[in-house]
Amino acid sequence: MNGKIRIGILGYGNLGRGVELAVRQNPDMELAAFFTRRAPGALRTLSPDVPAYSAARVTEFKDQIDVLILCGGSATDLPVQSPEYAKYFNIVDSFDTHAKIPEHFEACDRSASEAGKTALLSVGWDPGMFSLQRLLGNCILPQGADYTFWGKGVSQGHSDAIRRIDGVQDGKQYTVPVASAMERVRNGENPVLTTREKHTRECFVVAKPGADKARIEHEIKTMPNYFDEYDTTVHFITQEQLDRDHKGIPHGGFVMRSGVTGINGETREMIEYSLKLGSNPEFTASVIVCYARAAYRMNKEGFTGAKTVFDVPPAYLSAKSGAELRKTLL
Amino acid sequence: MNGKIRIGILGYGNLGRGVELAVRQNPDMELAAFFTRRAPGALRTLSPDVPAYSAARVTEFKDQIDVLILCGGSATDLPVQSPEYAKYFNIVDSFDTHAKIPEHFEACDRSASEAGKTALLSVGWDPGMFSLQRLLGNCILPQGADYTFWGKGVSQGHSDAIRRIDGVQDGKQYTVPVASAMERVRNGENPVLTTREKHTRECFVVAKPGADKARIEHEIKTMPNYFDEYDTTVHFITQEQLDRDHKGIPHGGFVMRSGVTGINGETREMIEYSLKLGSNPEFTASVIVCYARAAYRMNKEGFTGAKTVFDVPPAYLSAKSGAELRKTLL
Repeated sequence: MNGKIRIGILGYGNLGRGVELAVRQNPDMELAAFFTRRAPGALRTLSPDVPAYSAARVTEFKDQIDVLILCGGSATDLPVQSPEYAKYFNIVDSFDTHAKIPEHFEACDRSASEAGKTALLSVGWDPGMFSLQRLLGNCILPQGADYTFWGKGVSQGHSDAIRRIDGVQDGKQYTVPVASAMERVRNGENPVLTTREKHTRECFVVAKPGADKARIEHEIKTMPNYFDEYDTTVHFITQEQLDRDHKGIPHGGFVMRSGVTGINGETREMIEYSLKLGSNPEFTASVIVCYARAAYRMNKEGFTGAKTVFDVPPAYLSAKSGAELRKTLL
Repeated sequence: MNGKIRIGILGYGNLGRGVELAVRQNPDMELAAFFTRRAPGALRTLSPDVPAYSAARVTEFKDQIDVLILCGGSATDLPVQSPEYAKYFNIVDSFDTHAKIPEHFEACDRSASEAGKTALLSVGWDPGMFSLQRLLGNCILPQGADYTFWGKGVSQGHSDAIRRIDGVQDGKQYTVPVASAMERVRNGENPVLTTREKHTRECFVVAKPGADKARIEHEIKTMPNYFDEYDTTVHFITQEQLDRDHKGIPHGGFVMRSGVTGINGETREMIEYSLKLGSNPEFTASVIVCYARAAYRMNKEGFTGAKTVFDVPPAYLSAKSGAELRKTLL
């Protein structure tokens, strides 16, 4: 026992790998174990010294892990895993189905509260850091409007949708914020913006040999929910070009609060927060890991049940003392 | 008793007036009283229905005010007032002498803890929101560098320094961030920047009739601590021009965290927070007022003693319930 916060990772995809790397940047933490639904012996991590176990065995390790980080997906994994494992562990998840957050929160709050555990939910950048900035902006400038723009970045869901089209071999989709719309917000115009006015979609598609490119392009541009409400550009490229020029998972975005102060709202105030991320999963994991520290510390101080970024005193994110933070960062 | 949070304002300068206006934007609060060291009867506020009293009488109102907002200066007012009034009230101050924050915090922590009051200190945008962003950036990206740029905005201290020069009738100084330095940071270069490379100073000066402008310009540019380490531009203008074009108190700035993630730091991540403020005191007051809500609520829940923005769970800043915040802002 070296006093480090012992982290478990459940699920080893892009996010799990990001958490593995982020833990290395935090000397007060150590990676205790990986848990996977694949064959544990076949799991190739970047940390050969850290054991990998079957996900089915995770509760056996409840006394050897301080915080279990759930790296599964929001569609089917987390709605089951988070309420279940909050009975045994302090957990952090990145549940991002915005519409279902209230019920997810309630379910996790019940298990975590009963078990005396702390469940930090929907952690990442959106939901997560962007939510925090929206909250701060709303509280500071009650008379104002919120704007969130995403990108430029890869949307995994839209890329998947492209790849399901007949005749498509591979593809990647970028969400691109419309610069002129952002400028209108920055100018304090408080515009009402439609979906189409806020973002465009740019697709890089590898067609199978002999496929009808005009049909593919038409199917993409008219796909309901995914593309039909946007101005979409489709570029056909080779697999080599895709692999060479589009292998990363960059993302980012902007949260703006445009508000007014003064006697009659005559003074304009603008708050803008932006992220430019080389790797969406690595950054998300970096956020999750510092919130894992907060979950551990809050639990030690008796703050149990479900929490979100809204509930965490920022000082709990840091390994430094309050006095040191005040001296160096305030 | 209508259940509103009763706010008292001590000190009615630009900041006190900003607090007066900000309270109006928050329906769960009401202004209970002004306290002034001037003759209370002569105080002309924007709220004729709110009584004004002598500052000497403030402790008489300890049961009629939920949070006392201290709007004095950091040089001589707050070091005395904050520890003293934290014996009687929950307080918020905007103490901004960075080097003296630790001792100010200790002094206030002693009085507030003994009295069971909550003292929220150094609230505003720097220290305050910028500090919070620095903390978040450091926790999320431990391998990185911090950059804070201020402006374009009016520096009251530098404007005062200009006005003290012999032959100067009036003047205003703007701090201007160097765009090329900010671009280098945004490009992930992690440059080491000197004082001169980060900001320039721009002065608008009204000379008295017959004054030696060349001497004034030389005195400004070589003034130790204030200007000698910067590239400074001096413009001589008329009083009419100054009154017409430079009457506002705009300010703002940028906090950037440039960091890396990945196996060997191969992935660049950039966080940027910026403010563009039409009025420095009105925005500062808007921050203070939502932290006054947090001070009130934290005190009700038993969190007493001195606190800073690092200690406040963000949800406490809002009048909305946790469930509503999760539903609408997460």
